[in-house]
Amino acid sequence: MKKVLLSGVKPTGRPHIGNYFGAMKQWVELQVSQPATDKFFMIADYHALNFIQNHEEMKQNILDVVLDYLAIGIDPTQSTIFKQSDVSAHPELAWIFDTITTMPYLMRAHAFKDAEAKSKEIGVGTFNYPMLMAADILLYDATTVPVGQDQKQHIEYARDTAEKFNRIFGDTFILPEPLIMKEVAVVPGTDGQKMSKSYGNTIPLFATDEEIKKAVMSIVTDSSGGIPKNVYEIHKLFRSQLELDRLYTEKAGKYKDLKEALIADISAFIKPLREKREQLAKDKESVLAILKAGGEKARVKANAKMEVVREKIGVKLY
Amino acid sequence: MKKVLLSGVKPTGRPHIGNYFGAMKQWVELQVSQPATDKFFMIADYHALNFIQNHEEMKQNILDVVLDYLAIGIDPTQSTIFKQSDVSAHPELAWIFDTITTMPYLMRAHAFKDAEAKSKEIGVGTFNYPMLMAADILLYDATTVPVGQDQKQHIEYARDTAEKFNRIFGDTFILPEPLIMKEVAVVPGTDGQKMSKSYGNTIPLFATDEEIKKAVMSIVTDSSGGIPKNVYEIHKLFRSQLELDRLYTEKAGKYKDLKEALIADISAFIKPLREKREQLAKDKESVLAILKAGGEKARVKANAKMEVVREKIGVKLY
Repeated sequence: MKKVLLSGVKPTGRPHIGNYFGAMKQWVELQVSQPATDKFFMIADYHALNFIQNHEEMKQNILDVVLDYLAIGIDPTQSTIFKQSDVSAHPELAWIFDTITTMPYLMRAHAFKDAEAKSKEIGVGTFNYPMLMAADILLYDATTVPVGQDQKQHIEYARDTAEKFNRIFGDTFILPEPLIMKEVAVVPGTDGQKMSKSYGNTIPLFATDEEIKKAVMSIVTDSSGGIPKNVYEIHKLFRSQLELDRLYTEKAGKYKDLKEALIADISAFIKPLREKREQLAKDKESVLAILKAGGEKARVKANAKMEVVREKIGVKLY
Repeated sequence: MKKVLLSGVKPTGRPHIGNYFGAMKQWVELQVSQPATDKFFMIADYHALNFIQNHEEMKQNILDVVLDYLAIGIDPTQSTIFKQSDVSAHPELAWIFDTITTMPYLMRAHAFKDAEAKSKEIGVGTFNYPMLMAADILLYDATTVPVGQDQKQHIEYARDTAEKFNRIFGDTFILPEPLIMKEVAVVPGTDGQKMSKSYGNTIPLFATDEEIKKAVMSIVTDSSGGIPKNVYEIHKLFRSQLELDRLYTEKAGKYKDLKEALIADISAFIKPLREKREQLAKDKESVLAILKAGGEKARVKANAKMEVVREKIGVKLY
């Protein structure tokens, strides 16, 4: 069976190092470790529409993600970068899944429960997004979907839906497997919680030196005078345990020194990425051409699968 | 403003005379009375998928609806007959509408409430269908949507959704108006309730003489010995008030005679339709060619509208 990897990101703002170490980094590495795998990197603009309902912002965010992908080393000759809205088959297959899915089943989704806890006025797109996500994955016969530890449920929805469709209409979809990098699956933020935009505890992936400094200086430390756990946990992303143990023993209690060491390490890591991104941003036309070509490639594959689906459900008459 | 009429039918089985007098008849008449109006007649197979999850049945039902449309006099040179699944923009726009719609709003739909009264395991497609229906209508800039008296809510959902989208993203959609033929909007069935497949009280539109006889004989009558109301109400569809008043006065209390008169009238009406349909069914290839050409025509119009929508929401980058 051909290995196919699909991953996606919502274009809802700047990525942070939690996104990078939790997911994006793996995608670049897979280009080297799994050259025979078909790789699709999707910009989930139709998912993002639940949050961004502004023409200019959406447009800019999509372009930003393409720049992010290219800057971290996604190579368009090895991987397909495309946006969801270039392939109508995504919402089309999501509708088909709607018809074989019950509301109580969708109401068990974490994102739905979170939304429900906040307000009764839940968006239909928020409720229904696991079906669009199942379509995203199943349209490409994806075997592998890299996700964060907390996103395993997305894959379960895709698997359940594939099984249900196969049971009703006959064998059609491949069951995808999640790919989770255990050690760094949850990157801590500046407050020790999981790094997440919604907690306001992030360090942007393409941060300026000023931003890096500000973020690191804001890392919450206790006053025990020993090893500042929150600093150490982030530092682990950039240095080996061995190096860190030496450093943190030597500088035990010297929070300022340790934070400055972390700033230097983050800056050294981010600088080449940031510069590459700035370079790419100067040639917007080439960047859009990459996205457009990716969309065409994705569409060919998705449409071929949709033809199979249409035959199975009985709407293909010619 | 160009007048555009869009109507649809779910391919979920044989039409009955309630469907004909409640909706289909108007469509044929509009070809004569409104030649300048663009007319789209849609086979709603993606809606039907909520009910029909069987390859063969779906396929046959779609073909049956095309035959029904052509047999009653929908003229493919004047009207566009197409199936929903030939235009991916329908579910695509439905998803976009999902993102600007709340669950409590959709839960006010009659069909949702009916489903909720029966079971907690409501299908997501049953819940979400007003958004697909809004897309069906708004994609074609439909100004007029012929509906039964009890389907006015569909148009309200389409209008509300159009208004909401226009408010968020700028003027895009035209607000459709319902077209209701008041007198015959609700056709009574053989038991006096609204004629509806779910009540098992129908007279099929292309019924054989045997079926017509059986259906009419099953019409529920009281024993007052006067005018059998349920017979009279159906008879009104085929004869003028004047003729009927004479007949029902003359034959008051003679239920069998009155039913036989009704059988004769229904048979005389149905025979040419049924024969035309049988003729058409012999050339399946030509019938499918009509459907395919209609799909292409609909797709051109819908895709042009989708390009406008994509620009408005900010996902059109090239």
